[in-house]
Amino acid sequence: MDTLEPIKPLNIKRGMKVSDLVEDMKSLGFQARKIGEAGEILKEMFDDEKCKIFVGLAGALVPAGMKKIIISLLDETDVFVSTGANLTHDLIEALGGKHYQGSELVDDSELNKEGIDRIYDVFMKSEVYEKLDDFFDKNWQELEKAKTTKELLWKIGSLLKVKKDESILKKCYEEKIPIFCPALADSGIGLMIWGNKARGKEIFIDAFEDMKKIIDFAWKNKKKGVVYIGGGVPKNFIQQAMQFSTPASYGIQITTDKEEYGGSSGAKLKEGISWGKMSQEGKFVNVSCDATIALPLILSYALEKKDK
Amino acid sequence: MDTLEPIKPLNIKRGMKVSDLVEDMKSLGFQARKIGEAGEILKEMFDDEKCKIFVGLAGALVPAGMKKIIISLLDETDVFVSTGANLTHDLIEALGGKHYQGSELVDDSELNKEGIDRIYDVFMKSEVYEKLDDFFDKNWQELEKAKTTKELLWKIGSLLKVKKDESILKKCYEEKIPIFCPALADSGIGLMIWGNKARGKEIFIDAFEDMKKIIDFAWKNKKKGVVYIGGGVPKNFIQQAMQFSTPASYGIQITTDKEEYGGSSGAKLKEGISWGKMSQEGKFVNVSCDATIALPLILSYALEKKDK
Amino acid sequence: MDTLEPIKPLNIKRGMKVSDLVEDMKSLGFQARKIGEAGEILKEMFDDEKCKIFVGLAGALVPAGMKKIIISLLDETDVFVSTGANLTHDLIEALGGKHYQGSELVDDSELNKEGIDRIYDVFMKSEVYEKLDDFFDKNWQELEKAKTTKELLWKIGSLLKVKKDESILKKCYEEKIPIFCPALADSGIGLMIWGNKARGKEIFIDAFEDMKKIIDFAWKNKKKGVVYIGGGVPKNFIQQAMQFSTPASYGIQITTDKEEYGGSSGAKLKEGISWGKMSQEGKFVNVSCDATIALPLILSYALEKKDK
Amino acid sequence: MDTLEPIKPLNIKRGMKVSDLVEDMKSLGFQARKIGEAGEILKEMFDDEKCKIFVGLAGALVPAGMKKIIISLLDETDVFVSTGANLTHDLIEALGGKHYQGSELVDDSELNKEGIDRIYDVFMKSEVYEKLDDFFDKNWQELEKAKTTKELLWKIGSLLKVKKDESILKKCYEEKIPIFCPALADSGIGLMIWGNKARGKEIFIDAFEDMKKIIDFAWKNKKKGVVYIGGGVPKNFIQQAMQFSTPASYGIQITTDKEEYGGSSGAKLKEGISWGKMSQEGKFVNVSCDATIALPLILSYALEKKDK
Repeated sequence: MDTLEPIKPLNIKRGMKVSDLVEDMKSLGFQARKIGEAGEILKEMFDDEKCKIFVGLAGALVPAGMKKIIISLLDETDVFVSTGANLTHDLIEALGGKHYQGSELVDDSELNKEGIDRIYDVFMKSEVYEKLDDFFDKNWQELEKAKTTKELLWKIGSLLKVKKDESILKKCYEEKIPIFCPALADSGIGLMIWGNKARGKEIFIDAFEDMKKIIDFAWKNKKKGVVYIGGGVPKNFIQQAMQFSTPASYGIQITTDKEEYGGSSGAKLKEGISWGKMSQEGKFVNVSCDATIALPLILSYALEKKDK
Repeated sequence: MDTLEPIKPLNIKRGMKVSDLVEDMKSLGFQARKIGEAGEILKEMFDDEKCKIFVGLAGALVPAGMKKIIISLLDETDVFVSTGANLTHDLIEALGGKHYQGSELVDDSELNKEGIDRIYDVFMKSEVYEKLDDFFDKNWQELEKAKTTKELLWKIGSLLKVKKDESILKKCYEEKIPIFCPALADSGIGLMIWGNKARGKEIFIDAFEDMKKIIDFAWKNKKKGVVYIGGGVPKNFIQQAMQFSTPASYGIQITTDKEEYGGSSGAKLKEGISWGKMSQEGKFVNVSCDATIALPLILSYALEKKDK
Repeated sequence: MDTLEPIKPLNIKRGMKVSDLVEDMKSLGFQARKIGEAGEILKEMFDDEKCKIFVGLAGALVPAGMKKIIISLLDETDVFVSTGANLTHDLIEALGGKHYQGSELVDDSELNKEGIDRIYDVFMKSEVYEKLDDFFDKNWQELEKAKTTKELLWKIGSLLKVKKDESILKKCYEEKIPIFCPALADSGIGLMIWGNKARGKEIFIDAFEDMKKIIDFAWKNKKKGVVYIGGGVPKNFIQQAMQFSTPASYGIQITTDKEEYGGSSGAKLKEGISWGKMSQEGKFVNVSCDATIALPLILSYALEKKDK
Repeated sequence: MDTLEPIKPLNIKRGMKVSDLVEDMKSLGFQARKIGEAGEILKEMFDDEKCKIFVGLAGALVPAGMKKIIISLLDETDVFVSTGANLTHDLIEALGGKHYQGSELVDDSELNKEGIDRIYDVFMKSEVYEKLDDFFDKNWQELEKAKTTKELLWKIGSLLKVKKDESILKKCYEEKIPIFCPALADSGIGLMIWGNKARGKEIFIDAFEDMKKIIDFAWKNKKKGVVYIGGGVPKNFIQQAMQFSTPASYGIQITTDKEEYGGSSGAKLKEGISWGKMSQEGKFVNVSCDATIALPLILSYALEKKDK
């Protein structure tokens, strides 16, 4: 007990900065403390020049308005793995489509009649699919050259007319950040490819080629950090790259899934030590909080405190 | 759709203020939006001069370092209902006891040997009970005069040697904020009273007298707002005061419980409309987030923006 | 690993018995295994003649149709602690009131107009309060003699005209099962008492007298088992009786709350070892599942297998 | 209210059958009622001869001992979509590997030293990867002919020496059940393919070919039911097949994810109506429960009651 730090009751002050709030959260308990610790560990990842950072992204974060936060995080990211949904919604916005503040307390039949798709309390017009159709139609000759999801996604990024701080896909292309999407078929982008294939056009994306790239990169770089926003395929895909190379030295996980149900999405990072995915000496923290709240706090802190 | 607001992707800026982050969260989706809306509704409660504010507090928030946040909230509170645990931990700190940053990944048998009580990742020495014993022993003559939990808790507050910004109990006493604890027996303070009664001392706290006070107050004041931090008895006790007077016009609820399991703690505020606890025209929001994260954000916003 | 049991994939068979399903669940993983283990531990509590069983009940289980299950459990119960809500709903049913299968997807304003109170997907007519009023009015002279919640609740039970397998309150009275409700004020029964007090009638329930009873009983009986259905005050009230006597040797907890948020309701039973509430050599299991599913499974198993 | 059914308090009886328990749960509230309704809807899917059933499976269900349950469900399944993990663990068991009953309360560093991988409370020896290696090594010439994940998975199934009631993969192959795994790269099977590709062997699995198959099948069959065990890619992949064909008429979803956080895994089925994934006149139910508990109950009921 002598070595234990006392809890320091948090004092909120008028005009308090986000980074100071997160700093003070380090001295609390429960999930606020986890936020503080995640901020600290992310800062350390940023400051460790040898550390390569792998970011896994799941959940409908782009529709909820997290696009620019993720673009900020990409400035410090070496490998980016995402669900197809986030990339599709990013593409939709880059093509001029919008997401709206709706409500979870609505008659979904009414929305269907009005051509509105619901994502909890976010609405999207189903006509955005026309924009996607047009984009794939116009650019097919260029897109069909892709052989991997990474190439395809970079190509999509290269064709976008927005600035790199307005689109995840554009950002990844311009900054040459490797971007993987193991289940791209499971998304609106996948549907566009299916649509074109159905009309007789050809494209061959090798389902396993990206694995080689991510595992090779994980092998070459012995110091690694992982950032999991949600679980799903992105987390697991990075985890297995760690397992088949060397374990990660840093890790933060933001999820509302729970370990009690046994799935990978809710598993605490500590479990990864048994598999050799996480280093025994590593610094890890699990944050049980909606990522739309936790990520802005954690990232604000780490970006502001890095190199200090 | 014409009337819908587009989601505005959040941009975090160096040196950003907490209140500006919460302001921007209003334009997002999912739980970040709920944080923004809760900030706004709390500000409106503060600004509405006719509105009387009822705060219900459950969960081990004092051990986690939320004491001063709650004291700040008490500045705007007209009726305060708490679990006994929070008040006991407040009293422990007022008597010089401490809470420490521990770990949830420990051998609880080891802690037991060392005389340490664990509250998730917070530790407390079990010797704090001696301080409680001493306090009740020394002050029994004064305390035994109390006839209701409110009187008892105010008396305890009056006897504390700390400043009012260091203790919830002291604050309530000095500011004459009615404080109710319907299950006070279920707490360390209750144990102290039991201990004294067991040694033949006498005290008579009427289990139902506080109800009269809270319902009378709720009757007299037609405009009311409720703030639920956690569920449990405090939420339900305030809810029934609304049901048996007039419904609340404002409400925010911060909880990680879920409505699917049917308990009062997880019930969405909207359910209260059926019971006449919440007004049909009221402004309500449910925030699904650990209170140690959500409360500092929401309260920072409301305190900074009030009267603006 | 040599001592580890392999998972035995579950085989469902036509006409399978509930107790056989729970038996087979012992050989699975995740929460099914916890169900199996809880069944086994509850059976062991039932079989251990020295073991006194303390049951804590929270959540709206009576409205959901769990009344008879709880009455079955009371056959094996030595001390029963409940929220006021469950007892109020039990009383309502004993007086002829009903709960209905409603829906969570409704307009609560409409329900309010129709005089219907909603509890997630369960409906109740608000006119049941008239039956409560009548009951308290007619029986006040008898009820006002009570000095503790236990006496009051037994008196209510004694006045009911239903059989003991139709009412928790009747059952507790007839079988002389000590029943405690530390926050009785926080319930419909509490409201009835408030209503009578408001009309000038008198009753004095000592808020702390029950503590003496439960702690004395916990002291006298060194072998104890705890069964927590939900958390809240009932769990905590029993936990502190263990802490201030001797720790429990058996424990099962059914809750959907999570430990990550630090509250007592979600705390794993293991945490109680640090406090001296649970024995280091005890047998404990936490089940993360809605009690309306878990309790029938666990109890069916334990009742059928006991004494075998 | 006149049309509402009263809740019928559940009575557990000695020797009660699982199917009778689920039948009685239909008359309860909360999640027990959802179990009853899910059993009924699944039975209706089974009985509706025109209805084609799409099953999506996520979460580590095979390690937890759900393999045979899923094989039973496959008897009624027309399209099966799974995460790679479940198929990998099925393959491991088919090759003689085992899963063990471990504990979530262990030192993961110790497990790592002993070569044990942990999945919550389930253990697996990491040496199982050698069996996988051997299998892929020996059978590569056959496996490399596959052009889609379905072909590859059927080929794997065809090569297994176990009976079809011992392996999901064998069952799908023998019964010619289309099986899709959009993120197969994200699994142990994926790692084996990567390993062989890394050693210069060739295989070309088209990442988008399966989409054509599932959407074509969904187009041709206008009456469809969906069964989601967990969320993730399997749910979403089936959902988009519904969106781009015709909406599903029946649906059951078993998940512990919550809608409040906006992800597809936790979204209630009702949300799918807005997208045209679910029919407005459809019969749907969401069950909030660990699938290791809910699935055996629901499936036992539906298999026993079908054609009655």
